[in-house]
Amino acid sequence: MDVQNELEKMGLKLGEVEKYIEDMGYFKGKADAVVLAKSTEDVARVVKFANEREIPIIPWGRGTSVTGAVTPIKGGIIIDLSSMNRIIDFSDEDWIVHVEAGAILDEINAFLRPRGFFFPPDPASSFMCSIGGATSEGSGGMHCVKYGTMKDWVLAMKVVLPDGSTVTVGEPLHKNRVGYDLTHLMIGSEGTLGVITEVWLKVVPIPGYKIKRVLTFFDSEEDIGRTIINLRKNRVQPEIAEYMDLKVLEAVKSSFNIETHGVGALLIDVPEFEIEKLNLSLSNPSFVKVADSEEEKEELYKARSYAYLAVKTLAKYAMSEDVVVPISKLPKVFKKVRELEEKYGMKCPMVGHIGDGNLHPIILYDDASKDRAESFFRELCIYVIDEGGSVTGEHGVGIQKREMAIRQIEEHNGRPLLDLMKEIKLVFDKKKIMNPYKQVV
Amino acid sequence: MDVQNELEKMGLKLGEVEKYIEDMGYFKGKADAVVLAKSTEDVARVVKFANEREIPIIPWGRGTSVTGAVTPIKGGIIIDLSSMNRIIDFSDEDWIVHVEAGAILDEINAFLRPRGFFFPPDPASSFMCSIGGATSEGSGGMHCVKYGTMKDWVLAMKVVLPDGSTVTVGEPLHKNRVGYDLTHLMIGSEGTLGVITEVWLKVVPIPGYKIKRVLTFFDSEEDIGRTIINLRKNRVQPEIAEYMDLKVLEAVKSSFNIETHGVGALLIDVPEFEIEKLNLSLSNPSFVKVADSEEEKEELYKARSYAYLAVKTLAKYAMSEDVVVPISKLPKVFKKVRELEEKYGMKCPMVGHIGDGNLHPIILYDDASKDRAESFFRELCIYVIDEGGSVTGEHGVGIQKREMAIRQIEEHNGRPLLDLMKEIKLVFDKKKIMNPYKQVV
Repeated sequence: MDVQNELEKMGLKLGEVEKYIEDMGYFKGKADAVVLAKSTEDVARVVKFANEREIPIIPWGRGTSVTGAVTPIKGGIIIDLSSMNRIIDFSDEDWIVHVEAGAILDEINAFLRPRGFFFPPDPASSFMCSIGGATSEGSGGMHCVKYGTMKDWVLAMKVVLPDGSTVTVGEPLHKNRVGYDLTHLMIGSEGTLGVITEVWLKVVPIPGYKIKRVLTFFDSEEDIGRTIINLRKNRVQPEIAEYMDLKVLEAVKSSFNIETHGVGALLIDVPEFEIEKLNLSLSNPSFVKVADSEEEKEELYKARSYAYLAVKTLAKYAMSEDVVVPISKLPKVFKKVRELEEKYGMKCPMVGHIGDGNLHPIILYDDASKDRAESFFRELCIYVIDEGGSVTGEHGVGIQKREMAIRQIEEHNGRPLLDLMKEIKLVFDKKKIMNPYKQVV
Repeated sequence: MDVQNELEKMGLKLGEVEKYIEDMGYFKGKADAVVLAKSTEDVARVVKFANEREIPIIPWGRGTSVTGAVTPIKGGIIIDLSSMNRIIDFSDEDWIVHVEAGAILDEINAFLRPRGFFFPPDPASSFMCSIGGATSEGSGGMHCVKYGTMKDWVLAMKVVLPDGSTVTVGEPLHKNRVGYDLTHLMIGSEGTLGVITEVWLKVVPIPGYKIKRVLTFFDSEEDIGRTIINLRKNRVQPEIAEYMDLKVLEAVKSSFNIETHGVGALLIDVPEFEIEKLNLSLSNPSFVKVADSEEEKEELYKARSYAYLAVKTLAKYAMSEDVVVPISKLPKVFKKVRELEEKYGMKCPMVGHIGDGNLHPIILYDDASKDRAESFFRELCIYVIDEGGSVTGEHGVGIQKREMAIRQIEEHNGRPLLDLMKEIKLVFDKKKIMNPYKQVV
């Protein structure tokens, strides 16, 4: 209460702590106070105050993390940036949009699309996630198979450093080689290095060519993996390449008009001129459906977008993996997931941005099977690390994957790299107030 | 000599110090020894030795820096990586090529093209520059207007850290969110954080659509800037968009079959389906030439590639700027360059990747006019900083732009960001042996 009083005396607006207890991955923690920031200056004042007293700071965009990235583990002050949601500036000459960190991703695109542009990264939570959160998490989404993730689209950002000073990281320019690249150090740092209050994003024109959306069903996951390998070998660059297994298709069926056949389906967008090469790449398809209308295209896209939310309703809890493997190893990892499903006697619907080797097996569990779910999660992570993959492609580390992420760095990169990360954390945040116990630091 | 003897005793192969005196920008310095590294292990041994004795280390790819990035300012050991030039692995499933740092960029593309792929960043020195050097410099080139620079294409690298330990930075995967992004910290760090010995690069299929190459002449630079602005406003994504002024066209004319008209020309590649929009974007063109054959296309591309080398022959020395401005400010910066040309009474041929606002005014000078050339350089840099631009888009900082780069950070980013960079340097390199006095650290 003391902290709340002091923050109020500073003229800051406070939120209700109880509304910030849980993220979308059920990670729970209670803050000592929530500040509803209205400006970068508000943020700077809170951070300075917290730094002086060594109180943890947790930056909060819209709370859509599924890894506990915004969970206050040892109390502290949540800075809610959702009121800082302005689109500050846009230039159709520079192809750059400048926004506040609390702006919702889909709202940025709603602004850009009538102007003929779009911002490609599209996490499933894009209808509600903040751009600051997406930046801090280095988020991905369906279009990332072609366009890359947040790291490929953020040019610069305004950041309140842990000592309360405000800097601009990067330059709002398409090219810049001055100094070390701290922009990318911030992207994906999960609020452990400072508070992002504004970002400058690259945007691109909506493609002028026609795009075909194809939903293809298969009778084996081996053939699904094989199809993606064939696409690569045939040098097809899809706009999206998504997987939904039968359990996922069944889950979204009640809300969306989608067919179900075989063991699962690939949802693939390609430019019209690539449709022949796509057909050649399909490995034993059992049923192929080309979307005929814009409405049908939209319906299929939405079905895939809402898959995680639909699957979550199937059990008390859902634990989402976010593994990435080299494309060549897709068939192997499919097999492993199914083996583990059997071994642990659990259901694991699977979706994923399969086009870049990024799969989301979603382990369903209840209070009684929580330990088994965690063993399943861990065993798959270890398998993926051993196969040269990564335990996270876009969800980030948060609390959920700390142990596995550290293991991955030790096995793939070497312990000295982990030590460097920890030392860099201290360079930014000497008192370790910024979002403690997250990422690998 | 002592150092040379000790290195030889370690069984390392040494090069002739005299061959490593000067880079392509006339920056001079003499090393105490040159080691011709054959392996990452060789590099690690040299770095460990140097670290123990606090001897500077200068990583050397092919010496194509134009900023003094590989110049030994206070002696030290040059590690020449040019013998480490293998293509280690390539996967047409994963679209990743794994190469040693000394591999020449064009040779990587010569390997990829018959397989249907290419690696987009293409600095003018691509016929001789090393991929390790291009990574350390964060290099760009003509295709970067569409595809981005090195920072958009390097997934991971093997690095010998300043203490002699070897790590892998990043993951050879299209997506990875584990830990802090130190890959991008290394890209553009100009050898100040470690020695890159291997890199994993993304590659992409050669486009399936037809590309038109158009050379358009103009009677004013105002119209040239205006044309680029129009292209942006019309949402045309060119494959390349290059500028050559009349002095440059005249310089390349003797070696290439190229016409000259007006004050200069834009060389623009667009997909065939965008040709109408390109025509609409041209602001008062005085002469338009569409390349008819593959030979003609190649001739024009080469003329632009060799522009810097051709211009260098026009005077005893040539000093290349590498400024970037927001697209909207192109007409203003053109005007400024011409004003400065007049003010200082010097010739300044200009080329540039104008499509992303990156210009290379090349100041010609001799021994008598060196000071004036430097004043010209400085004054343009300060103008660009004041206009919200950057003093380097792709050449890097090296020795040449240290003062201006620091000024830019202080004005645009804030002094605390510069301090963070210096502290990060110390985290990696406690004894400051790695390529001292380069970049801003």
